[in-house]
Amino acid sequence: MSQYRTFTAADAVAYAQQFGGLAKPAALVNAQEVGDGNLNLVFKIFDSEGVSRIVVKQALPYVRCVGESWPLTLDRARLEAQTLVEHYKHSPEHTVNILHYDPELAAMVMEDLSSHRIWRGELVSGVYYPQAATQLGEYLARTLFHTSDFFLHPHDKKAQVARFINPEMCEITEDLFFNDPFTDHERNSYPAELAERVVALRNDDALKIAVASLKHRFFSSAEALLHGDIHSGSIFVAEGSLKAIDAEFGYFGPIGFDIGTAIGNLLLNYCAQPGHFGPRDAAAHREQRLQDIRELWLTFAERFTALARTKTRDVALGYPGYVERFLKHVWQDAIGYCGTELVRRTVGMSHVADLDTIEEHETRIACIGHAIELGKFLIVIADQIDNVDQFIARVRQKG
Amino acid sequence: MSQYRTFTAADAVAYAQQFGGLAKPAALVNAQEVGDGNLNLVFKIFDSEGVSRIVVKQALPYVRCVGESWPLTLDRARLEAQTLVEHYKHSPEHTVNILHYDPELAAMVMEDLSSHRIWRGELVSGVYYPQAATQLGEYLARTLFHTSDFFLHPHDKKAQVARFINPEMCEITEDLFFNDPFTDHERNSYPAELAERVVALRNDDALKIAVASLKHRFFSSAEALLHGDIHSGSIFVAEGSLKAIDAEFGYFGPIGFDIGTAIGNLLLNYCAQPGHFGPRDAAAHREQRLQDIRELWLTFAERFTALARTKTRDVALGYPGYVERFLKHVWQDAIGYCGTELVRRTVGMSHVADLDTIEEHETRIACIGHAIELGKFLIVIADQIDNVDQFIARVRQKG
Repeated sequence: MSQYRTFTAADAVAYAQQFGGLAKPAALVNAQEVGDGNLNLVFKIFDSEGVSRIVVKQALPYVRCVGESWPLTLDRARLEAQTLVEHYKHSPEHTVNILHYDPELAAMVMEDLSSHRIWRGELVSGVYYPQAATQLGEYLARTLFHTSDFFLHPHDKKAQVARFINPEMCEITEDLFFNDPFTDHERNSYPAELAERVVALRNDDALKIAVASLKHRFFSSAEALLHGDIHSGSIFVAEGSLKAIDAEFGYFGPIGFDIGTAIGNLLLNYCAQPGHFGPRDAAAHREQRLQDIRELWLTFAERFTALARTKTRDVALGYPGYVERFLKHVWQDAIGYCGTELVRRTVGMSHVADLDTIEEHETRIACIGHAIELGKFLIVIADQIDNVDQFIARVRQKG
Repeated sequence: MSQYRTFTAADAVAYAQQFGGLAKPAALVNAQEVGDGNLNLVFKIFDSEGVSRIVVKQALPYVRCVGESWPLTLDRARLEAQTLVEHYKHSPEHTVNILHYDPELAAMVMEDLSSHRIWRGELVSGVYYPQAATQLGEYLARTLFHTSDFFLHPHDKKAQVARFINPEMCEITEDLFFNDPFTDHERNSYPAELAERVVALRNDDALKIAVASLKHRFFSSAEALLHGDIHSGSIFVAEGSLKAIDAEFGYFGPIGFDIGTAIGNLLLNYCAQPGHFGPRDAAAHREQRLQDIRELWLTFAERFTALARTKTRDVALGYPGYVERFLKHVWQDAIGYCGTELVRRTVGMSHVADLDTIEEHETRIACIGHAIELGKFLIVIADQIDNVDQFIARVRQKG
């Protein structure tokens, strides 16, 4: 990593000129750093007319959080770029286009998505994108099918598993999803008013055993090349368009983890509604979120099944009826992982704007408490929920 | 691999002198090739008094089978040696000691086990080793626990998974266990008299879907560093002693695969009894095999649980009750993989002496037919058998 240096704005412009693939690179004249600066530098590169044309992203060798510095491998830039390149092959409509990356500089050049907005912000503001859930289901079906044992030659699959081994980023998930919220850990962060129910998570046998099982499969179940962090803040949307970004947690893991993370973030938004809107709008948005979840799962399952019927290369896995059986297992995994996303985003270190931006204190506490209870409930009853309609009924049952 | 050359007996002696770690290497004077010559050369190296002191094993770059040559990676010698070295760390009593290996020559030097005999031959001859099943359970518990997510640091586990990726040897298992016997394949080999029930395997939905699921977990479930081929021909026994050898199929896979392969070979011997002994002895040996299976599983489960209670490093997987839940899953996997071992050893290419050496034609057909039916039955009902006593009752039910 001796070549590594942190980019200035001028460096970013020069880098974009060199690797952006533009017909007139000299048209790129200045850069603005737009990242939150916690993990990465993100530069938008502008032309002389002030139009953002391309993006340069560089990984920082540490994470700034809670005032501390936490060293973090620069190799995550390679993993992010390679995951996105792989996903782009299979779902170019719904994956950001990586034009170039350099492992030594931990930097990449990617298409500009200024015409899009981060989905989480739109969800918090109540802006509805009716095609987003379907497109996310399509993205997940295409990327996960084509990197699974259904499709890849076994030799390629094994080589890919080795290439995408991602110990440091996986460790963050292993700790933040499956350990911290269920133990007394200094990284946890939750309202004092909810301490009693947070403490109750730590000795709930059914819950802790189910979480151990989910963690064990996160460790050991190399089903497909996951995005690894596909929450609503890693997704850009525009009218009729959806693009996944930020795949630095990419590795071969259980398919249900990506599905569960995506559904979990829609449910977090569901829980947050009373904090942002009056009763009527909140109810309407909640209904949209449940329909989003329904669309997401049904699209994923239908597309994955259709791909399996026509493109499965493995003769045993191609036997009629097997893909349906496999998707039952994915579905139950997804409910469990969805539950862990709800708990880790409310009890653990890393929160979501959906809940954190609720101004009214008591409402915020109530919404967070709702998400914790719902998460815990889903983890424990995951294997009793056979389909998405039952899932929606169970969510409604919990308020 | 430019250094590779096939050893002569003189080469093997020189190699053993150099790497055998003997105090007086010059005492080694000659060698005898004792392998079956299909996959590997195996030399016993003798001293001047005619005592076998050490073994040199070298992988051949092809498999001779049915008169054909099938090219096969020499890297399997590295994988075999490294798997055995790793297993020896955790179960030195029950793993052959590898003194040296050389990836370029695809050769290794290992302890001499002339005081031992191959377990399969003893089982076929009706020689009973009352401690063997317990020791095999102990070997499996110690090697599989210490290479699992319970014990390994997640970073080490991921590095080990990458190191033990074994595409070519896994492909053999993927084909011979999970494809060939359930399709019309030229590699299959079974008595013409059983053609009807073999053909029936190919369109049995419940069976084929269960086999697809077992294959999928063989592909994707990296639970521990498996031996990968732990049948009774890969096990040396002596009075009070058991040693695993021949780990060239080693890779990170589902724990139930090793358990199921071991149990499956005891069941194949069970099925073969009427071909080798009169009714009274056959019945007594069958009872021994069922007790062996009981001992093997109960020892494995008890030791694995005890290790988990005292040595689990992962805080989530260490929660009380989780190891028991995990072992339920391992048990059901083991029954399924046991079933596939029975089918692939009777319908597929690679057979066992237990059945093949039955002289009386009709008895042989009956025993093979029994093994096929039992294997198919176990695959389909695996998730309905909760414990080893139920398993034994189900086996008795099938004759």
